[in-house]
Amino acid sequence: MTSTTQPLEARLHALLPSHPALRTSLLPALLTSFTQIAQTLRTSQRVALAGSANHFGDDQLNVDVSCEKHIRDALEGCPSVVVASSEEDPVEVAVAHAPGAQTGEERYSVAFDPLDGSSIIAPNWTVGTIVGVWAGDTAVGVSSSQQIASLFGVYGPRTTAYMAIRLPGQDDGGVCVELGLNEDNRTWDVLREKVTLTQEPKARYFAPANLRSAAYSEPYMDLIHHFIRERYNLRYCGGLVPDLVHTFVKGHGVYVSPVTARDGPKLRRLYELLPVALLMECAGGRAVDPQDGRDVLDRVVRGTEEKGGLVCGNAEDVEMVMRTLRRG
Amino acid sequence: MTSTTQPLEARLHALLPSHPALRTSLLPALLTSFTQIAQTLRTSQRVALAGSANHFGDDQLNVDVSCEKHIRDALEGCPSVVVASSEEDPVEVAVAHAPGAQTGEERYSVAFDPLDGSSIIAPNWTVGTIVGVWAGDTAVGVSSSQQIASLFGVYGPRTTAYMAIRLPGQDDGGVCVELGLNEDNRTWDVLREKVTLTQEPKARYFAPANLRSAAYSEPYMDLIHHFIRERYNLRYCGGLVPDLVHTFVKGHGVYVSPVTARDGPKLRRLYELLPVALLMECAGGRAVDPQDGRDVLDRVVRGTEEKGGLVCGNAEDVEMVMRTLRRG
Repeated sequence: MTSTTQPLEARLHALLPSHPALRTSLLPALLTSFTQIAQTLRTSQRVALAGSANHFGDDQLNVDVSCEKHIRDALEGCPSVVVASSEEDPVEVAVAHAPGAQTGEERYSVAFDPLDGSSIIAPNWTVGTIVGVWAGDTAVGVSSSQQIASLFGVYGPRTTAYMAIRLPGQDDGGVCVELGLNEDNRTWDVLREKVTLTQEPKARYFAPANLRSAAYSEPYMDLIHHFIRERYNLRYCGGLVPDLVHTFVKGHGVYVSPVTARDGPKLRRLYELLPVALLMECAGGRAVDPQDGRDVLDRVVRGTEEKGGLVCGNAEDVEMVMRTLRRG
Repeated sequence: MTSTTQPLEARLHALLPSHPALRTSLLPALLTSFTQIAQTLRTSQRVALAGSANHFGDDQLNVDVSCEKHIRDALEGCPSVVVASSEEDPVEVAVAHAPGAQTGEERYSVAFDPLDGSSIIAPNWTVGTIVGVWAGDTAVGVSSSQQIASLFGVYGPRTTAYMAIRLPGQDDGGVCVELGLNEDNRTWDVLREKVTLTQEPKARYFAPANLRSAAYSEPYMDLIHHFIRERYNLRYCGGLVPDLVHTFVKGHGVYVSPVTARDGPKLRRLYELLPVALLMECAGGRAVDPQDGRDVLDRVVRGTEEKGGLVCGNAEDVEMVMRTLRRG
């Protein structure tokens, strides 16, 4: 593991020498919006009421709207961003820019979930933002080779971020970078130049989403028994961002969001699955569809509201999970 | 549910009219130390390395030591505090005060865990501080009627706190208050005057600690099957503070840290079980020992290193868990 205090700018220049707009405008703007979201959350004590008050919807909406606005404001400041859509407003629309702003040669489409994990905002658990960036004029109906970057903003005791970058045509590889926010001066430091899952874990972890569906899915129940019998550690907070960040930090772990006959798929492909899958692959892990075992990134997403299941994490455990689920 | 922006001072005056040192010195000092801990954690980006680096011990130790120092400094400023001990240094020692400071009529003993949840600090998940306050010259070997207050500091996207107060002799009742930090001016607002678990939940939640021990404990495995079958939601982040705060915010939930023949008890009675149990009882819930079903607060703790199991949460689920575990 490499650890430095290298500023972000130098790292981005090394990774993206030929994409100046992405490197100097879009990615820094998104990271700055994560800082703003962190500050909004820190002063939104009233969401503490969201879990039990009658005003749940309103409270939640207020925070979601604030967080979405920070990201949309950031995108408006980036002339290279052509269209954007969000989980809160799932329609791709053109992004307005300042009069006279020139798009230039680089053109990007952005899809984002401003605040993932709404059920755990009230109890003050770590939550996150998910962003995907595609080269070109749309994120919908295109090959994953167009998906050039994805990011997590992570709002916990401190503010961190994960940024995956994979250049078009460079299907194998890419890099996942871990960043820490210096709040005083709003700069970002590279904490790890390359997040990499390990093959030799000190401990194994599992995160079983929608566990109660195991009541009517024998393969899922078999899988849970396997985890318990093989002494995996349970860590499941119910937020996609913190649950996957746990894997990035521990270097190992597997997340399972199953699809059963009774429960349909839960995760949005454009706003959750595709960005998550790019991050996981760039960290050396795998992200597959539990329904057919295909890599998440191999499926072209045809609409902004498509949903799917997810098995992701270190390759060995993803393969074990798929063997167990498909035996059913 | 009562929601106000009542300042803390007024609420404390109403709750503790005859305990001025506790009200105006010790409790505010502890809450201020939580603010300092939150600020320390926010700027300790290097703990992000703790999960996988060779320097795990050192990194963790640095954060733990900083957090402990904030609390010890707070206690030194409170002449009413006679002795203190912590999970990091589990020996009751006299607290030094400024020359000339007079202890006065109120005398308190404090036991605390400065930073609970060390395994989830690196992934930037919510963590917390646990503090217990006893009337008198020691916290060890005394009746729970001496336990006058306990607190959680909660460090997540924002900083919150829970404070239980139960006056000596007032065995039934007491109150659990939810607080939010205004970081700008370091004041605390009362978010909920009285945290109360509900009898009519919208959803049920469970947090199963050491789940892998179900592999060799049939009663624990039966319990897990019951939760799944009855459609309880799994929420288990592996930090005692955030896992119980989830219950306080959702108004419902049950936490199970079992004791099996193979795995001994995991939680420290003085630093974790007693403060947690007071908070849970003051919120209208229950906290019992899974080995004999006795209320946690009914057992006199004889040494600072004693450990136990825990079943706590809303009374109905605690009783169901105990029936299931004892059938084994």
